[in-house]
Amino acid sequence: MQPLATTSEPVGTDALIIGAGPAGLFQAFELGLQGIRAHVVDALPHAGGQCIELYPDKPIYDIPALPVCTGRELVARLLQQISPFDPTFHLAQEVCEVARQADGRFAVETSTKQRFLAKTLFVAAGVGAFQARELKVDGLAAHKGSQLFYRLPSDTTFLSNQAVVIVGGGDAALECAIHLCKLESTARPKRVTLMHRRDAFQASPDQVDAFQNLRAEGRLEFVAAQATGIDERPDGQLRALRTVDADGLPRDLPLDTLLVFLGLSPKLGPIAQWGLDLDHRQVLVDTEKFETSSPGIFAVGDINTYPGKKKLILSGFHEATLAAFAAAAIIHPDQAAPLQYTTTSSKLHQRLGVTGRAA
Amino acid sequence: MQPLATTSEPVGTDALIIGAGPAGLFQAFELGLQGIRAHVVDALPHAGGQCIELYPDKPIYDIPALPVCTGRELVARLLQQISPFDPTFHLAQEVCEVARQADGRFAVETSTKQRFLAKTLFVAAGVGAFQARELKVDGLAAHKGSQLFYRLPSDTTFLSNQAVVIVGGGDAALECAIHLCKLESTARPKRVTLMHRRDAFQASPDQVDAFQNLRAEGRLEFVAAQATGIDERPDGQLRALRTVDADGLPRDLPLDTLLVFLGLSPKLGPIAQWGLDLDHRQVLVDTEKFETSSPGIFAVGDINTYPGKKKLILSGFHEATLAAFAAAAIIHPDQAAPLQYTTTSSKLHQRLGVTGRAA
Repeated sequence: MQPLATTSEPVGTDALIIGAGPAGLFQAFELGLQGIRAHVVDALPHAGGQCIELYPDKPIYDIPALPVCTGRELVARLLQQISPFDPTFHLAQEVCEVARQADGRFAVETSTKQRFLAKTLFVAAGVGAFQARELKVDGLAAHKGSQLFYRLPSDTTFLSNQAVVIVGGGDAALECAIHLCKLESTARPKRVTLMHRRDAFQASPDQVDAFQNLRAEGRLEFVAAQATGIDERPDGQLRALRTVDADGLPRDLPLDTLLVFLGLSPKLGPIAQWGLDLDHRQVLVDTEKFETSSPGIFAVGDINTYPGKKKLILSGFHEATLAAFAAAAIIHPDQAAPLQYTTTSSKLHQRLGVTGRAA
Repeated sequence: MQPLATTSEPVGTDALIIGAGPAGLFQAFELGLQGIRAHVVDALPHAGGQCIELYPDKPIYDIPALPVCTGRELVARLLQQISPFDPTFHLAQEVCEVARQADGRFAVETSTKQRFLAKTLFVAAGVGAFQARELKVDGLAAHKGSQLFYRLPSDTTFLSNQAVVIVGGGDAALECAIHLCKLESTARPKRVTLMHRRDAFQASPDQVDAFQNLRAEGRLEFVAAQATGIDERPDGQLRALRTVDADGLPRDLPLDTLLVFLGLSPKLGPIAQWGLDLDHRQVLVDTEKFETSSPGIFAVGDINTYPGKKKLILSGFHEATLAAFAAAAIIHPDQAAPLQYTTTSSKLHQRLGVTGRAA
């Protein structure tokens, strides 16, 4: 992996891949076999997409010839496989602008102002960028970033001696509650309250055990309830979360800071504005080249749709492969070559950096 | 793997897969995920198709998330992956007859008279059944099975004290020559002659070394020439192979037995007679279900064609997957289910025989 490019000049590239999940990573591999180097942009701070964000440790059974592997293992294997082609990663940034220039190339800009001029684009953005699912309560959104957070802030010193309410019943919520209760006394909130709609948790047994122990020791409080509103002080500061329990009884949870962990929700985001033909928020492609309605822009993996489409990783691999062949015809129009095999082609062996003999 | 079925009654099955190469094996996996058990027929005596027949020890680099594996490893991994679904293999037999019955099922018969009644058929026959490439010399074919062989017969005692001519310059030809020279004296031919068009061999360095050593020791003879005809005795027996060398000089190679190893050549075989729409000897399919022109018959892997088709193993995996979904709709028309994932679906975990927790 190369260091992040930091220039403000546009980076010229034959291929720009949007999305570093399995389909985007394998796209870089298949482009590499075609002799094409790629840049890869992803909204997350790491490669792997959903595999890392949603199921890093869960087993996957339907990757062909891998009877079982976790999301994390799959990504590690793909990163190893694409390493001969050394794609440049631009992480923790979303592609915001895509505009076709007069010369046919695409001018692309990301949320961190990284710019590209790309001959071909590969939208491998899965279900879109992941965003924290919001707690929908009137007036709450105004407190985001001051008293409301959807991730535990990296510096938590301001929580010292505060009343903290955590909302959620999954791993992230429990992990946060446990973490705060175990801080040194000077850094610890004075009160940690976890609210979830019921007294049952979708988290690992270890996590649940640790949480229940802290609860039994009185080091945190659990409230089974749902949020109905907020209470603000005259100066506009958030004073309490208003809730109601299963019996309809109201209760205010006083707080200084509210931490919400309701999972991640995908947003198609700016892709919806690029003028590509969509069907139910999926990008329409053909099944010959997996090209969108905009020539030179391909879409592979969970974000695309076509008759028969199944959102399976192995289909993304096939789609990325045919898209790479189609892109090669655009990038190197004079070099149309017959299909070559990695088992026998010395040209592909050279690109892969291997001798072609079994280890 | 279950033992070969030996009944002469037709075997009723939801799914019959023709071809046990990578696409056929993964077809059994994807059908298994759909709750459908399959029978698998292959012309070769082992599973694996081309991977085992043509490149068992050569590295493959483009199987997604497997940076490198040999053909043999790929097949072993696929066999492990499909083992929860326990398909029944019927090997060393070709499917000869396919006829649709009045009830919509397919009556199928193989070359060993194994019969099936199948609700759905999956043609995963690769480039067809492999057959030895023939030495094309007028009148030679009549001697096949008596003095002419395209594989070394399993019982070679009849070669004792014979004059044997071997034709070919690859691994199989050299291996046969070396094997015959190293037999015990009572079992050994009196003369072993290897003929190839030039004094250079397409075989492993070890094989070539062993061959050249035997040649230097005078234990076999090498002739650089090409066959032009045969010479027969008055009783019709083959007496010699007529050849001509690079300078145009003729030479007869006297022989009792001729062993020819010119590689394998695929034959589409009886599939061409099943009434499926073809294009250049490939079976035409759609890209939604990978169904042929005959409803209920699917074609996956190297044997099919559609716009954009590339003969790549990873495409066969995708094709087999969509075909399995389409077949499930035929076999269980009332059970249309939303797409489930092996990471999370307890139904799929049950079918796979796993608990769904990472090891």
